[in-house]
Amino acid sequence: MSQALIVGSVALDTVETPHGKVDAALGGSCSYASVAASYFTDVSIVGVVGEDFPPEAIRHFQRRGIDLSGLETKRGGKTFHWSGYYTRDMNQAHTNTTELNVFAEFHPKLTEAQRNVPFIFLANIHPELQLDVLKQVRNPKLVALDTMNLWIDGHKQALTKVIERVDILLVNEQEARQYCEKVNLIECGKELVTLGPKTVVIKKGEHGALLFQKNGIVYLPAYPLEKLKDPTGAGDTFAGAMVGYLARLGEVNDENLVRAVNVGTCMASFVVEEFSLNRLLRIQPGELRARCQKLQDMVRLPSLVDGTLDDVKLVAEATV
Amino acid sequence: MSQALIVGSVALDTVETPHGKVDAALGGSCSYASVAASYFTDVSIVGVVGEDFPPEAIRHFQRRGIDLSGLETKRGGKTFHWSGYYTRDMNQAHTNTTELNVFAEFHPKLTEAQRNVPFIFLANIHPELQLDVLKQVRNPKLVALDTMNLWIDGHKQALTKVIERVDILLVNEQEARQYCEKVNLIECGKELVTLGPKTVVIKKGEHGALLFQKNGIVYLPAYPLEKLKDPTGAGDTFAGAMVGYLARLGEVNDENLVRAVNVGTCMASFVVEEFSLNRLLRIQPGELRARCQKLQDMVRLPSLVDGTLDDVKLVAEATV
Repeated sequence: MSQALIVGSVALDTVETPHGKVDAALGGSCSYASVAASYFTDVSIVGVVGEDFPPEAIRHFQRRGIDLSGLETKRGGKTFHWSGYYTRDMNQAHTNTTELNVFAEFHPKLTEAQRNVPFIFLANIHPELQLDVLKQVRNPKLVALDTMNLWIDGHKQALTKVIERVDILLVNEQEARQYCEKVNLIECGKELVTLGPKTVVIKKGEHGALLFQKNGIVYLPAYPLEKLKDPTGAGDTFAGAMVGYLARLGEVNDENLVRAVNVGTCMASFVVEEFSLNRLLRIQPGELRARCQKLQDMVRLPSLVDGTLDDVKLVAEATV
Repeated sequence: MSQALIVGSVALDTVETPHGKVDAALGGSCSYASVAASYFTDVSIVGVVGEDFPPEAIRHFQRRGIDLSGLETKRGGKTFHWSGYYTRDMNQAHTNTTELNVFAEFHPKLTEAQRNVPFIFLANIHPELQLDVLKQVRNPKLVALDTMNLWIDGHKQALTKVIERVDILLVNEQEARQYCEKVNLIECGKELVTLGPKTVVIKKGEHGALLFQKNGIVYLPAYPLEKLKDPTGAGDTFAGAMVGYLARLGEVNDENLVRAVNVGTCMASFVVEEFSLNRLLRIQPGELRARCQKLQDMVRLPSLVDGTLDDVKLVAEATV
């Protein structure tokens, strides 16, 4: 039985970066997230594609053991197609064209089995559709949510309703600032965590991630990579791995959430090394563990030497 | 006897941020760095001011026990005056005017006693002057170096000579990219550490700092602050505290360098809470230790649960 359910877009992406180009390659939030989660647990997806969706892509999902009973193929339809590019700094995607095609009519309908899946990732779709998924699921153990600037702009009320109902909210720094109408990310994180989620993750790309929980903040750097080919899908891979790893652990608590962010960060570091899902589909045994360990070592701070902050010099002048 | 020597600018700053304004307030790299270092060790400075330099500012240094025998007052001269502003995001200083005044003729001349000081911070001045200071010092235990875009642009060769001779290089992310002519900060840090310094610190403002050593990378987040009033002096405070804390520890090794970055990060978090040195001069006992502890807690990652990355699901498909 599936332990993780991913609802989102299955797409074909045409992407150009300073390191190359792919044409109509496998993409979409659901694709990245489900493959990432599939390394840790049994995964089921809800999505829609057109008749042009390549059989090789289906086989990729199948080889990862992903349940495709919720993936609808629309007769005569064309798959969602995003075309975009990145410039040298790679922090910002630029869109050439967005052809929604069959995705324009996407109304996620969960199978009976899917309604009982305990770990859920609502990838970035219209918040009304995300709410609709939440109505269909039965007492999930954990729901994680992603969104985008478009919905913060135009559908903030519906989005807020979803945020109030989820356990984990994932946003990037621009989205956090936009939603809270504040510049300071610490303020944003603290505000977002009061809306309902037990955990808010603010993703900062090459600068890592900030994790806000009721009782504190945890900081995770990005895995140190020298060569990034294509950042597409990093956020969805991060989220999918997080949810998949939590499903694997079974128990959701503050420590496990931090562990899951550690794993998510490292999974995302693979996906950006190649275009599309080419690297994500080829993670070898031991590779992920090595990166998780390296990330932990990077933030291992030695305790300060006893007494070195206790001297009289530390007494500041009383009046200036 | 002084343990730390700071060479740099002593200035009057007129600064405006969204949170207020100060007019001709105490500033300059040497001022911030020396006061920060003075919390940990005995400090001596080399700098120059004009006759207009306010006696209250002198008294601030004196109350912190800073040796001012190397601070020259130029008869009839005016103190270096920087005027600038920050917009809402606070990441970038914008200059209105820079009046070098007596600083234009600054030629650091160390006293006999200063030539024997073991811990040295060369704050941001012309690299030829920094080289000149290095000729005057006798067998220091540690030299730390700061610089700026202006010298990378126009005096890269001289700057490189200084970099080759120091133990710690401190640069912000823009400077690292500019010097290395590369976008990726991991590549930049690895390249800079091959030039000579045992440690390269890339400062990323609100995103923390990356520390590169021969045997690895350490990541420190910024201390989580909700209210920043004025970022002026944060980098110099960071560096001064680092050097002062290392002088306090006495021994320079990889662990102590990481400890010093922890302390530097937290000292810098105080300075930005108020304009000028107003907060830096009033750190109360216990406050610094509390922030250092909180920063360590923020990056304390729990080990991954044994066996959770060992499953067969982690074996990727052989061919795609």
